[in-house]
Order: sequence, then structure tokens, then C-alpha cells
Amino acid sequence: MSVTTDATGKQAGTAVSAESSETVNGLMLDEESFRLIMGNRLPFAQMLGLQVDYFAGDHVRLRAVFSERFLRPGGTIAGPVMMGLADAALYALVLSRIGPVELAVTTSLSINFLRKPEPADVIAEARMLKLGKRLAVGEVTLFSERPGVGDPVAHVTGTYSIPPPEDRAAQSHQV
Amino acid sequence: MSVTTDATGKQAGTAVSAESSETVNGLMLDEESFRLIMGNRLPFAQMLGLQVDYFAGDHVRLRAVFSERFLRPGGTIAGPVMMGLADAALYALVLSRIGPVELAVTTSLSINFLRKPEPADVIAEARMLKLGKRLAVGEVTLFSERPGVGDPVAHVTGTYSIPPPEDRAAQSHQV
Amino acid sequence: MSVTTDATGKQAGTAVSAESSETVNGLMLDEESFRLIMGNRLPFAQMLGLQVDYFAGDHVRLRAVFSERFLRPGGTIAGPVMMGLADAALYALVLSRIGPVELAVTTSLSINFLRKPEPADVIAEARMLKLGKRLAVGEVTLFSERPGVGDPVAHVTGTYSIPPPEDRAAQSHQV
Amino acid sequence: MSVTTDATGKQAGTAVSAESSETVNGLMLDEESFRLIMGNRLPFAQMLGLQVDYFAGDHVRLRAVFSERFLRPGGTIAGPVMMGLADAALYALVLSRIGPVELAVTTSLSINFLRKPEPADVIAEARMLKLGKRLAVGEVTLFSERPGVGDPVAHVTGTYSIPPPEDRAAQSHQV
Repeated sequence: MSVTTDATGKQAGTAVSAESSETVNGLMLDEESFRLIMGNRLPFAQMLGLQVDYFAGDHVRLRAVFSERFLRPGGTIAGPVMMGLADAALYALVLSRIGPVELAVTTSLSINFLRKPEPADVIAEARMLKLGKRLAVGEVTLFSERPGVGDPVAHVTGTYSIPPPEDRAAQSHQV
Repeated sequence: MSVTTDATGKQAGTAVSAESSETVNGLMLDEESFRLIMGNRLPFAQMLGLQVDYFAGDHVRLRAVFSERFLRPGGTIAGPVMMGLADAALYALVLSRIGPVELAVTTSLSINFLRKPEPADVIAEARMLKLGKRLAVGEVTLFSERPGVGDPVAHVTGTYSIPPPEDRAAQSHQV
Repeated sequence: MSVTTDATGKQAGTAVSAESSETVNGLMLDEESFRLIMGNRLPFAQMLGLQVDYFAGDHVRLRAVFSERFLRPGGTIAGPVMMGLADAALYALVLSRIGPVELAVTTSLSINFLRKPEPADVIAEARMLKLGKRLAVGEVTLFSERPGVGDPVAHVTGTYSIPPPEDRAAQSHQV
Repeated sequence: MSVTTDATGKQAGTAVSAESSETVNGLMLDEESFRLIMGNRLPFAQMLGLQVDYFAGDHVRLRAVFSERFLRPGGTIAGPVMMGLADAALYALVLSRIGPVELAVTTSLSINFLRKPEPADVIAEARMLKLGKRLAVGEVTLFSERPGVGDPVAHVTGTYSIPPPEDRAAQSHQV
């Protein structure tokens, strides 16, 4: 990746993006790039069977493909599966807005479990509440992909710490 | 108390009972019984390599045995591993106080990530803040088992919904 | 109040409402009734200058009328004002759905402060995430009523414990 | 900055400074200095009748002196009083560790209400979970000052954003 500096000393193309400064829909990272990060750098995402549905202008959508291993007593899906999915959805949301800054880290996450999810895929839709220079705050609504089931199964808010540009540069060498 | 195994081979003698008397240290469920529940009924706990260290009078201690699969960019342990461990620790805490009421479910969980955990086992110590008839509230402190590292890596509070006695009875038939 | 039972044995008009079974828009409590509760029973709401804007089918809207006493260092509005407003908005939301069950109590509340609110009225819009028999979960978005300022200043999720019908009956004698 | 000690061994003299050296017990701000900040700069703290009990090496203790205005239906103390007290206790905790950086602001707060507090003073004990350069995380346990009542009435975790040194300098001119 290259970050050039214009005459005023400001970074042109801000931070990020492996090839392009911005994707077609105004995002700083596209689905395919995030799939690569998830596939190569987040092994727990594979444990949880996570998949990226799409990135849109105002939200991103991921899913946990159902597996028998997700079940807990009562025949519903275990909480940690939903927490892991929500955390990944927030990570995808943040990176889609700031580019492939892999060192962005969750600083807090709060989940309310609303309904017992059926044994089916769980879908997460994440939206940004605030994107600051150093902190991003997002919310995630989790649904069960069961025909006719519309009510959310969980609601999550989370905060991500965004490393300052100098640390991102350092990161690009590490990665 | 005795738990018999029916013809289908379900319920292999976990030590459990709604009316069970207390165990020696005042707990309603011992480590070995919880290990059976975790082993037989919580497959995600195995994905996360969870182990029970011990149950004590005022707290329980579990750990996630380190695996390369836990790593995330930056060389630290992924948040969902810590959330899954904390959730299991709260479940163990609640069941150690009320007995093997497997249908107790998390209703909310909040985590603050404090420090980046080294690539090592993560330890969770869970303590009860309130044990009501219908709701339990606990807190979990997570540590990295790294010699000389004493500060917590994360702090969690969570609430568990406890099913009323009639539903617990129903449960024993369902299971 | 009367609760009638229809032919199928289900309760028509379920529990609640001092005089009427349901208001015009499907709510179980109208703005004016809540204003009375707030005025007579919630003195802190007056300390905070809280007002009810309206109750709608899918959300309720309250505000904290600006006062110099709300300011904190930096010239912004103190966090406790926003927390108090959000809590009252959730209370209004819950009562608008279940009727004047004053003994409904907050069991948890989480707030993320997003932007520093200008010295102006703060507005709270509360929406229900889940209305169960015993637990309600809602979310509140807080805005600053400053022309041209659209982004939320804080986001809140909260849970309310709903007393069982027998305790509500007891309450109606107390109140 | 100078902190003098009177004949009884208590710290007299307040004073505060951005470059201040530590106080006797290792704190960067003493009770009296925080009382001045609270009295002059946090009018809501007076609405809530907040008082500083003491600052200790590992925690600080504040209280909300009981007032009839705190009551809510059920004869218990309203949630916003507890949230305001907890927020102020975290603010006191942070300032006691970093000095009089008034522009430190709450970024998130989560409270679990555990028991209904009696009509009596509410006491808050705040402890630091992590003190970073830019973010502090603390926990607060709230008690009712009722003889013989030992169990906590609420538990809070909160995060504070600490402005960078250059903004603190700017602040000292503003104040």
C-alpha cells in the first residue's frame, strides 16, 4: 500500500485501502477484501462459520451459517456464537468505513438477548452510530433466518478503538 | 441423587437433581458435574477449549486453553474467545448456586476490554453480585496466565434468567 | 379496571389501564396520564425539567428542557441529565405499552455518549426491542435540539422488569 | 502546586495544577480540590446532593445524601440518582489519578440495578480497572447506608476519555 503526501503535507487518499482509495459505493473496503482478512487473519470466524452477505452504504450484513455445534440446552443457539458474529460484524463495519486497518480493536461490547434463536443461520446487520478519529460506535441487530420470523433475537452495541495513522503505517509493514 | 439413562442413551449420569441437597462446600453443583454438562451439552465450549479450574465458595474459575486459532491481527487473543469464556464462567457460577438448571440463559452481557492478552491461557474468575429467584447478576474478571502479568485483560458483567421451578421440572422431562 | 375473557379463554385487554382498556392508537397509556405520573410520582423528572413530547405507535418522545444547571466543564450537558432523560423515556415507553404499572423498574441501562451536546434541549426517542411478560428491552436515541444538528448525542439500551399481574393488583391499592 | 498538611494530618489547601506533583498518598488530586470542582463546575451534583467521603489509594467514596426528591413509585430511590452518583464517583476517581483534567468525559456507562435501595443515603465506591493514556475504565459499587444492609444496590462500569496533554493545556486557559 502507498500513502502519498500532497504539498500541504496532508495525506492524500487518507489512510488505507490496498488498491484503490475508495470503492464504488463510497466504502473504503469491499466485501471481497474483508473476506480475505476474515479468512486469513481471523481463525475464530471460521470456527463460527461466519460469512459476509454484503456491505451497503449504511450497514453491513454478515451471517453465522448454522451448525449443530452452536446448540445449547433448550435447542437454541449459544450466546457466544451471537457475540462472535456481532463482534465480526462491527469489525467489518468499521473496516468498510476506514479501510483495512486490521489493528482496530473492540474496546467494549454490550449485548441484550431478546428471543431464543431457532436452529438456523443467524444474521447480523451492523450500523454506525458514530465514526470518530479514534473511536467508532456501532449497533448490531441479530435476526434468525427462519421464514416468517422477523423479530430480532439480540441487540448489540460496541465500540472500536481506531489506531492513529502512524500506528497504521507501522502495521502495514507488520502485516 | 441418581440420574438414570434412558433407553435412547441420553443423559449419561450427570450428577443433578432439582431437589438435590447441597454439596460439601455449600454449592449446588460441583465441578465434575459442570464438566459433564459442558462436555455433553455445550459444544462451543469445546471449540473454545474451555476447562473448569475449580468452584469455590465465593467464585468459580474457568480457563480457555490457548490455541493458535484464538489469535487475531496484532498477535492477541480475539474478543469472542474472551466473551465465550466469560459467558461460560457465568453459567458455571449460576449453576453452582442453583443446581443443574440447564435452561438458565444469559439475558445480557457487557464486556470492557482492558489490555491485549498475550498468546496464553485466559483465566476467568466469576463472582455473584446478586442471586434472585428469577435473575442472577454476576461479574467476571479475565486474566492472562502469563507469569508476572497480574492486571486483568477484560471485565464482564452479565445477567442470567433463571426459569421458575415448574419450568425446571418440565425441563428434566424434555432433556 | 376490568379484564374480560373472550371465548377462547384469552384475556381481552390483558392487564392494565386505570380507566380504559386501550387508547385510540393502540397504546395502553396516553401522554396526559404519563404526565400525571411523572408530575406526581417522579420528582427527579422535575429536577431534570423533563417533558413529554408525544407517544406514537412505534416510539415515544421526551425532552429535557435546557437549564444552565445541566452544564459541565466544556460547556456541554452533563451525562446524568442524559441518563435520567433516557431512563424516563424507557419508563414512558414501557408504560405506554403495558399501562400504568408504576412498579416497573429499570434493571439495567447502558449508554454510549457519542457527541458533546450543545447547550440546548435534549430529545429522547425510545423504541421497544422486546416486550415480554416479565422483561422489556428498549433502545433510546438522544438528540440535541439544535437547528441543523442531526446526529445523535447518545445511544442507550435498557431493560425493565415488569411485575407479575398479582403484584400490579397489590400496587393499584397502594397508589 | 503545594499541598499542605494541617495539624491533624489531613490535607488542607487544595490547589491543583496541570504539572502538579503527586499528593502525599500518591493521588494527583485531593478531596478538597475535587469538592471545589464539584461545587463550582457540576451544578447537577448539587441537585443530587452529592458529597465526597474520601479518596483512598485504591478507591474513592462519594455519597448522595438522601432527599425525598429521590423517591420513585415503590418508595425506593430513582435510578437516575444512582447513575448520577456513579458517574460523579468515576469522575472523581479519574481526576484523583490524573489531576484536575476537567475535560475528561464519560464515553460509556453500564449499570445493573441489583436491589431496591431504602430511603437513605446511597454510597458509591469507585475502583480503577484500567488507567490508560487516553481511556480509563472503572467500576463502581453502590450501597445503601442502612444499618445492617450490606449487599450492593447497583453495580456500574464506565469508561472515561482522557484528553491528550495538549488539549489539557488549552483547557487550563479556558477554565
